[in-house]
Amino acid sequence: MERPVKLGLLGLGTVGSGVYRILQENHEIICKRAGTEFEIAKILVRDLQKPRGVEIDPRKLTTSIADILEDPEISVVIELMGGLEPAYQYILAALERGKHVVTANKAVIAAHGARLIRLAASKGVDLCYEGSVGGGIPIIKPIRESLVGNRIEEIMGIVNGTTNYILTRMTQEKIAFSDALKQAQALGYAEADPAADIEGYDAANKLVILASLAFQTPISLQQVYYEGIDQVTLEDISFAQHLGYTIKLLAIAKRKPGGAEARVHPTFIPNEHPLASVNGVFNAVFVRGDAVGELMFYGRGAGDLPTGSAVAADIVDVLRNRLCGSHHRVETLWQPIPVEPVENVRTRYYIRLHAEDKPGVLAQIAASFGAEGVSIESMIQQGRGQDQPVPIVFITHEVEERQMRASLARISTLAVVKDIASVIRVEGVMS
Amino acid sequence: MERPVKLGLLGLGTVGSGVYRILQENHEIICKRAGTEFEIAKILVRDLQKPRGVEIDPRKLTTSIADILEDPEISVVIELMGGLEPAYQYILAALERGKHVVTANKAVIAAHGARLIRLAASKGVDLCYEGSVGGGIPIIKPIRESLVGNRIEEIMGIVNGTTNYILTRMTQEKIAFSDALKQAQALGYAEADPAADIEGYDAANKLVILASLAFQTPISLQQVYYEGIDQVTLEDISFAQHLGYTIKLLAIAKRKPGGAEARVHPTFIPNEHPLASVNGVFNAVFVRGDAVGELMFYGRGAGDLPTGSAVAADIVDVLRNRLCGSHHRVETLWQPIPVEPVENVRTRYYIRLHAEDKPGVLAQIAASFGAEGVSIESMIQQGRGQDQPVPIVFITHEVEERQMRASLARISTLAVVKDIASVIRVEGVMS
Repeated sequence: MERPVKLGLLGLGTVGSGVYRILQENHEIICKRAGTEFEIAKILVRDLQKPRGVEIDPRKLTTSIADILEDPEISVVIELMGGLEPAYQYILAALERGKHVVTANKAVIAAHGARLIRLAASKGVDLCYEGSVGGGIPIIKPIRESLVGNRIEEIMGIVNGTTNYILTRMTQEKIAFSDALKQAQALGYAEADPAADIEGYDAANKLVILASLAFQTPISLQQVYYEGIDQVTLEDISFAQHLGYTIKLLAIAKRKPGGAEARVHPTFIPNEHPLASVNGVFNAVFVRGDAVGELMFYGRGAGDLPTGSAVAADIVDVLRNRLCGSHHRVETLWQPIPVEPVENVRTRYYIRLHAEDKPGVLAQIAASFGAEGVSIESMIQQGRGQDQPVPIVFITHEVEERQMRASLARISTLAVVKDIASVIRVEGVMS
Repeated sequence: MERPVKLGLLGLGTVGSGVYRILQENHEIICKRAGTEFEIAKILVRDLQKPRGVEIDPRKLTTSIADILEDPEISVVIELMGGLEPAYQYILAALERGKHVVTANKAVIAAHGARLIRLAASKGVDLCYEGSVGGGIPIIKPIRESLVGNRIEEIMGIVNGTTNYILTRMTQEKIAFSDALKQAQALGYAEADPAADIEGYDAANKLVILASLAFQTPISLQQVYYEGIDQVTLEDISFAQHLGYTIKLLAIAKRKPGGAEARVHPTFIPNEHPLASVNGVFNAVFVRGDAVGELMFYGRGAGDLPTGSAVAADIVDVLRNRLCGSHHRVETLWQPIPVEPVENVRTRYYIRLHAEDKPGVLAQIAASFGAEGVSIESMIQQGRGQDQPVPIVFITHEVEERQMRASLARISTLAVVKDIASVIRVEGVMS
């Protein structure tokens, strides 16, 4: 065997420590399977004195990025700092110096993936980012390599564990959103400021990464429509159950004639759909390819060791590739396809509104839907007496978002309608 | 680009035609992503005149294996004939001549995988077999490459679509095994002679492949204990539902201190377990690794295009590897570990028996369990009157198979017990 390959690690937080542990504990087997020896030569940290959960030779720690970037012996950089900056600048600098890069940084890949992939290709080095989506779930490599004989038609993912945990608690225990959020925070599943998770922004980042890869087109965050789960109520969850659905925050990308759709929002999904039974902090990505049909990849979407598992696999890939001089094994073909604005998206809808409980009300609402070409698949009205408005729930057939918006604008002007409480899209009806 | 790589195809049945179609229809994109041109130069068939579902230049067809094996220009052989012989001899001969081999042949890999993998390594060529388990589901490559940083602790798979379809119909429609089998045959999901599927032999072959790879040890078919689903009754399915379980035919491999377990049998699995909602002809493989935790891979376990998708990915891998001279990317480390005989396996059990409905019966049965160290977790007795025996159902705590057998031997001698109708293992209780 040749001399050990030297790796530089950027960051020694949760994931960084997990990766370090996996590489230490499974050192021998990883070396054998990678076909080469390796060592973590330097680790960039913010504070040299901070106590670490893992035992590390203090001489390996540095607070200076130059110790890694300017060391010609370090040929692989593993970025696990998280956040957009300075991680992006460090990755850029490492690639420009001809170093291979492994990262689990969703923010950087979502914002700059296309540029970084091109740069890595031009430098003849690898850029691997399995850990950036779905924690330990193998999903980037299967899409890139195992589905290479497919035209991928659709991706639907539960890619945010925090929101899936909250929706699961609300569904199983009938507790309100705010209480479920508090539980998630108490358990460390949600951050003190949960906005990025709750509002769908985290999932939108991951969708950018998955959809860009699946459709081989550079999709940007600005092209992804996203909505969070903070408007989902227990009433909606009850109606969903009554109608045979489960509410999930889904990241959805579909190939359409001449374009693509990319959106994140709470979604009614039929109970028979495999995504419907993905509960708690688990993640899952459902993929449909023209040859393979439906696939689903399920696992733990976060955590030091699961994400560390993905990073370790990327490192072995890089070491293998380095050994035989074969970088980026499957070509990324960027063929720009337009992403449709959300107004053009066709889907089914669940609508919950409150209206007066008297004859003729339904006819007025139905006429408003009909005037915009929206047809109704099913309706539930739960009468509760003459004095107060009653909830009425509709599931529509597939319509364009613009039609739905126009019909809701009409309905909101009806004197008999008190409010439109919820509008949630319906997906995944298996044909 | 260099001259097209020449591929030889063995077999043009269901999967062969599917692969041919995928390679034709996605030719350009596959070439780009593989980084090289390729062509299917020769196809071995049994009958030159047989009408084919795909359009093929008749000059490519041959009935002589020598036209492929002895053609030095053909560097990749794709074996899709199925069955043990002559497929095994052809694969052996191809590897010995330094040709890369892609196969979807579970029988050959289960019976001779270890020898073929060693031979391929010694010749510096690839042997890929993604299509041999789980149809289009990426599972071989994820275990081999994406989980390389893990010690895999457990695999539980629904790897036979025929039996899963039958059990799903029995569960959802309360129809008997024989009727569900007839439906499966009418739909082409079961063969006229369904023995290999029904009796668990097909699943056992696939378990050999998965477990050998996961544990990096050559496990043989003779070491796998297997039972089929033909003894599963509607009564067992009803009790399972009543107790919160689903019955699935599972292929189970577990790492144990100093050894491994490998077995296929009908299994009670809790409804919350992700495998419990894998229905119809779908397959799924649940994997637990020390770093990654629980994963599940789900998809279509059979069919021309799904399996063709797996084969196409293997072909791209081989072409990529060939281009850069890097065969078998991750080393297979054969470290023999003993497979425990089934008598040593520890698991929980469901037992259904019929006994007289009178005071003291339960005490006798419980004493027989207790005498062999079997403790009971729950019990259901459905009294139906004094004159006929009543069913009694037990779920035990974890015990060794040998203890269970000994206690059942005791119970079967009790005068008050009419018969022991069912003994089904219980797995997958999530901790």
